[in-house]
Amino acid sequence: MASYHFGYCDRHGTPASGTTGKMFRAALTLATASAFGAAPAAVRYAAAVELIHNFTLIHDDILDGDVERRGRPTVWAIWGKPPALLLGDALHALAIEILTDTRGPEGRCDEAVRRIEQAVVDMCRGQYEDCDFTERRPVTVDAYLEMAAGKTGALTGCACALGALAAGADVRVVDALESFGRRVGVAFQLIDDIIGIWGDPAETGKTASDIAERRMTMPIVAAIASGTDAGRELAALYKPASQRDSGRHGIPHIADLIASAGGRERTRRRAELWTNSAIVELPCGGTPFNELVELARAALRRDR
Amino acid sequence: MASYHFGYCDRHGTPASGTTGKMFRAALTLATASAFGAAPAAVRYAAAVELIHNFTLIHDDILDGDVERRGRPTVWAIWGKPPALLLGDALHALAIEILTDTRGPEGRCDEAVRRIEQAVVDMCRGQYEDCDFTERRPVTVDAYLEMAAGKTGALTGCACALGALAAGADVRVVDALESFGRRVGVAFQLIDDIIGIWGDPAETGKTASDIAERRMTMPIVAAIASGTDAGRELAALYKPASQRDSGRHGIPHIADLIASAGGRERTRRRAELWTNSAIVELPCGGTPFNELVELARAALRRDR
Repeated sequence: MASYHFGYCDRHGTPASGTTGKMFRAALTLATASAFGAAPAAVRYAAAVELIHNFTLIHDDILDGDVERRGRPTVWAIWGKPPALLLGDALHALAIEILTDTRGPEGRCDEAVRRIEQAVVDMCRGQYEDCDFTERRPVTVDAYLEMAAGKTGALTGCACALGALAAGADVRVVDALESFGRRVGVAFQLIDDIIGIWGDPAETGKTASDIAERRMTMPIVAAIASGTDAGRELAALYKPASQRDSGRHGIPHIADLIASAGGRERTRRRAELWTNSAIVELPCGGTPFNELVELARAALRRDR
Repeated sequence: MASYHFGYCDRHGTPASGTTGKMFRAALTLATASAFGAAPAAVRYAAAVELIHNFTLIHDDILDGDVERRGRPTVWAIWGKPPALLLGDALHALAIEILTDTRGPEGRCDEAVRRIEQAVVDMCRGQYEDCDFTERRPVTVDAYLEMAAGKTGALTGCACALGALAAGADVRVVDALESFGRRVGVAFQLIDDIIGIWGDPAETGKTASDIAERRMTMPIVAAIASGTDAGRELAALYKPASQRDSGRHGIPHIADLIASAGGRERTRRRAELWTNSAIVELPCGGTPFNELVELARAALRRDR
């Protein structure tokens, strides 16, 4: 199941070359360590971060009932929810086991484990809030950003912190990189939200639409808060999933309302702001962080 | 949700004195450390073991669809499956975070984290097999014991190993205590299987019956393998849950067949054998393991 999820084989175990995902978080870890000339020391840290990310994806697909990821059926859609839940738990455990095999500078292994598990707790909180938003109205921009900082920012922040830890960086430098990564993660989530409404399924590999599930993502939150006529019309008809009068308002009409109320444009602008504020967090000095800056900017340009 | 699960409050957050469960695994950790005069050093290890156990209980209740535990509705039955799944993930993370705060002898924290996550992987495998058994026929006694060693033995073994680690015991002593605990866990599961068929709901706090769900627990596996007429009748009618002709054969009739085929008696005898073989694993020498021996024996006598 794990090999299938990572695209290494098909559902029958036959080797395949499916997509393994973007590996954005592992790239953050390696790019951070690389800035200090220590990429080789960070390989296990990067693997642990990616395993944690994938354990949460497998669990999230169960929570959200998503049947497709990376252009293929999700693990639970093939093997059922109990095996998928257990696979997620086992990948969580494996991620930590890998870290205990990692010998960085004195005491640094404990620190990596502590930071990654704090990120997991933050992610669980963020994911919980995200589920809760589906039934809650209104959702404020601040509440949304708090949720995104947990759901997505916690692990991208941790990914950068671990890269710095692997390189033996000073704790203030580690914290600065965590702050950078956390902001990059919020920007990443904002772009995800745009893709979740206007993305091309051929590119994203997902059929699920955030609108169909009445999720409260930033374009919608921003549109409702816009004070425009389109925003008011949207607020009136975008009811929680449990109360919606299905079919009366088509997804394209809702997407148009969000765009008319400026939800798409505001979300993109916010993503740019979060990226710029992330870059400002990078420690001054001689360390060349251009790979990290490039990764942060690339995350803004993606369409999947 | 966590406080509710542990019986500290009711579903509205009002303090309550519900049952926190047997705390058998935490008791194993403390009794092991106590044998070396080091119980205080093991408190955080015991808490971590109990958090891991409870994370798996919360996830198992989702997998099995069980609506009652410790005489109260399960977490998912009140808050839904997504929040319960996330609570389990967060408790898993918290357990590990607690261990990173534990300073034992040099390098021992990593060792505790490594052992507990290996136990989690073994538990996931065991739980996966247990789910699989429900649809598989026949299930051999050996396959059952392999499953029980993972599902239950892995964490009871780890619980004892962590108590020894906290006390700074030699690695051979740690391994011997892990082996003791693993066998105690198999015996514990065998008694659980008896309770799962003949237990009094007023005592167990659960309404679910292993027979109703067509689970393949030891009394059933042993009865089918008994070569008796009752065993053959049982084999013919105890179909996987997905194929059963519901209602034609009542639970009391099936329970009687299992007992007539010797399934109950054989399971109890096996539990005694596993307990005795566990006690033999205890390291010789001056360490007084009587508390551990008493815990192992008490596990045989319980009715909940």
